[in-house]
Amino acid sequence: MKPVKVGLLGLGTVGTGVVRIVEGHQEDLQSQVGSPIVIEKVLVQNKSKTRAINVSSDKLTEDPWEIVNNPEIDVIVEVMGGIETTKSYILEALSRGKHIVTANKDLMALHGPEILAKAQQHGCDVLYEASVAGGIPIIRTLIEGFSSDRITKIMGIVNGTTNYILTKMSQEGADYADVLKEAQALGYAEADPTSDVEGLDAARKMTILSTLGFRANIALDDVDVKGISSVSREDIAYAKRLGYEVKLLGIAERQDDYMSVSVQPTMVKKTHPIASVNGVFNAVYVYGEAVGETMFYGPGAGELPTATSVVADLVAVVKNLKLGVNGKQLGLTYKAKKLKTDEQIASKYYLLLHVDDRAGVLARITQAFAEYEVSLESVVQQPNPNHSEAEIIIITHDASKASVNKVLAAFESMDVVKSVKSVYRVEG
Amino acid sequence: MKPVKVGLLGLGTVGTGVVRIVEGHQEDLQSQVGSPIVIEKVLVQNKSKTRAINVSSDKLTEDPWEIVNNPEIDVIVEVMGGIETTKSYILEALSRGKHIVTANKDLMALHGPEILAKAQQHGCDVLYEASVAGGIPIIRTLIEGFSSDRITKIMGIVNGTTNYILTKMSQEGADYADVLKEAQALGYAEADPTSDVEGLDAARKMTILSTLGFRANIALDDVDVKGISSVSREDIAYAKRLGYEVKLLGIAERQDDYMSVSVQPTMVKKTHPIASVNGVFNAVYVYGEAVGETMFYGPGAGELPTATSVVADLVAVVKNLKLGVNGKQLGLTYKAKKLKTDEQIASKYYLLLHVDDRAGVLARITQAFAEYEVSLESVVQQPNPNHSEAEIIIITHDASKASVNKVLAAFESMDVVKSVKSVYRVEG
Repeated sequence: MKPVKVGLLGLGTVGTGVVRIVEGHQEDLQSQVGSPIVIEKVLVQNKSKTRAINVSSDKLTEDPWEIVNNPEIDVIVEVMGGIETTKSYILEALSRGKHIVTANKDLMALHGPEILAKAQQHGCDVLYEASVAGGIPIIRTLIEGFSSDRITKIMGIVNGTTNYILTKMSQEGADYADVLKEAQALGYAEADPTSDVEGLDAARKMTILSTLGFRANIALDDVDVKGISSVSREDIAYAKRLGYEVKLLGIAERQDDYMSVSVQPTMVKKTHPIASVNGVFNAVYVYGEAVGETMFYGPGAGELPTATSVVADLVAVVKNLKLGVNGKQLGLTYKAKKLKTDEQIASKYYLLLHVDDRAGVLARITQAFAEYEVSLESVVQQPNPNHSEAEIIIITHDASKASVNKVLAAFESMDVVKSVKSVYRVEG
Repeated sequence: MKPVKVGLLGLGTVGTGVVRIVEGHQEDLQSQVGSPIVIEKVLVQNKSKTRAINVSSDKLTEDPWEIVNNPEIDVIVEVMGGIETTKSYILEALSRGKHIVTANKDLMALHGPEILAKAQQHGCDVLYEASVAGGIPIIRTLIEGFSSDRITKIMGIVNGTTNYILTKMSQEGADYADVLKEAQALGYAEADPTSDVEGLDAARKMTILSTLGFRANIALDDVDVKGISSVSREDIAYAKRLGYEVKLLGIAERQDDYMSVSVQPTMVKKTHPIASVNGVFNAVYVYGEAVGETMFYGPGAGELPTATSVVADLVAVVKNLKLGVNGKQLGLTYKAKKLKTDEQIASKYYLLLHVDDRAGVLARITQAFAEYEVSLESVVQQPNPNHSEAEIIIITHDASKASVNKVLAAFESMDVVKSVKSVYRVEG
């Protein structure tokens, strides 16, 4: 049996995992696909660097074109990261008929449609299971597992760093800044944590998930993004008292073919399955019209979990090679993208206000909600022990984002409202 | 585009759901597969019966051979249940080159290898996602999502009836018999509940899951089965006090290519993700050497959830038809089945003993464990308020099933041990 030859772009954490699995599970892989899978060439930045695994030096190269242009190579596994340069390698490889497996969420969120179109043109596979939620096979679940259903909601904890921070804040009553420092020391957060904590990483993953779930090309710019850097210890304490956890959720919703996608800190009722997803774990909750509630849980990152998804894609490409059906992934997106307006985006909201502690204030506040037809599920007023102000905690019934924004604008011009401390979407 | 013609065997709950989804989602299905999917004929027991959905009477037939032998029909969807007769229809249909989608766990657990061999012989697909865990796409996850990994453990809550009963017992402190009656009244349990409550239904599903997870043909007879009918209110109360929930778990384990599969009431630590799966929901926890911990959660039964899986399989068959690659599911099982002996099956155990309340008893009890090299994690002795006996609650460290059985045999001949009230496996 002729071996299938793989070129590996990148030998960092995930690349190392890919080599380990392809070598360590070779016998199992051969039993499934019927021929050896060989890593032929590996692109590295520095050939002479000491590495965690042993790769014979004649397989290493610092020249990407030795892989991209190599007629011996059937499949390219891209785990080097980066966007523009990486894209140029992938497009060139596709034009030479090579199949692609990538873990690159940035690339797929920004240039997915272009890359997939190029792949189709050349009869090539492009698979990217590892780009979202590491070891959880959520992409094939959306494409194949729910092919028969109409998915109306996807809620994801798709960033382990922020889930670790929020979990620690919740479990230890700690401050955001302290937990972030700790996460950086442990290697769970980067020195520049912006992409994680401001929700950009999650937004890229939600772009990919919502595109597959709704079968429409959602763009990164369509995602409304808010991170966790303003979540306070008090927010989490209040949430817990009311029976909620604060989670950074990616939320994609569809109603009558109108779609919305956002990333935002959200108060999730403790009884909801996604509320108990803790630490660096990821989970994706999927609601389908027919299937109802489902959830998929697992490690969102890490060498071997992510490599598991990469190599599962590699197995799929090789099976397609054997069957001669590469590049035939039919009907991934066929719906027109119609985005919801703020009038159409509805959810429950939690608000924490600091107000003047005098007669008639609560009446004026609740009147503002009534004016914009936002009805209230619960209202608690309590003295704020540290100030002369009172605190008002409000949970609304389902209300449109537009209406809530109008209420917030009204508060700006009300002198009795000292500050709007927090506004969170509520789920569950 | 030539329509793909489907013959439906059975128009009960799931069959009705299949018709609803194929008709209601027709446009989406066509967009994915490129041609209409038409339900051509439906086998029913009584054509003149009133039904929840409108199927034109010329499509109904009481004669299975009108479908099985029908040259017009490309795919047969079997949702009628039953074993021997149903198997004869399926084998006949396969011999005529028809592809099969089935939701029949009994059939696949008992005759899966024979049916799959026949399918391969005739170049046909046999897909059975709906046979386990209703709407959760766990079968394609095991086959494709984790194709690169070595799965070492599968733990499933795969029977909704028993999970409903145990959840109610836990939440309400109710007795088994009372909750069973209630579940029967609500339609969650059958008039004869044996197959569910004695674990047979779960054992069939674990046969299918372990075969796919371990890539070896596990037979139903290989599964060690114990149901929930002996689980008492006290067991659950004690478990909760210690931080556990009692769940009916299917547990498949593999170590060094040696496998074991069981179904049994198990004490699961509350922090384990599967402990909070409540009511009629199902969940399958999968541990892979590379991926680590994952869990898949969703509805285990019901008209539309189960039909979602059936129609997803139908979509897969039709895509294969378009690509001309039916019957090519490679390498599903290739491992030799090697079953663990009782000496090789290891876990923690919980034991509740009633003993004479006098000096030296605890020493004799713990001596019995020591003799068979079962070490203890915790021991609590307390007076039993209703008797002159004391209660001893023991949780062991990991111990072999053989050793624990020897300890239990030793207790039989110890006059100070009045009774062994409960023995449960412990997870998490």
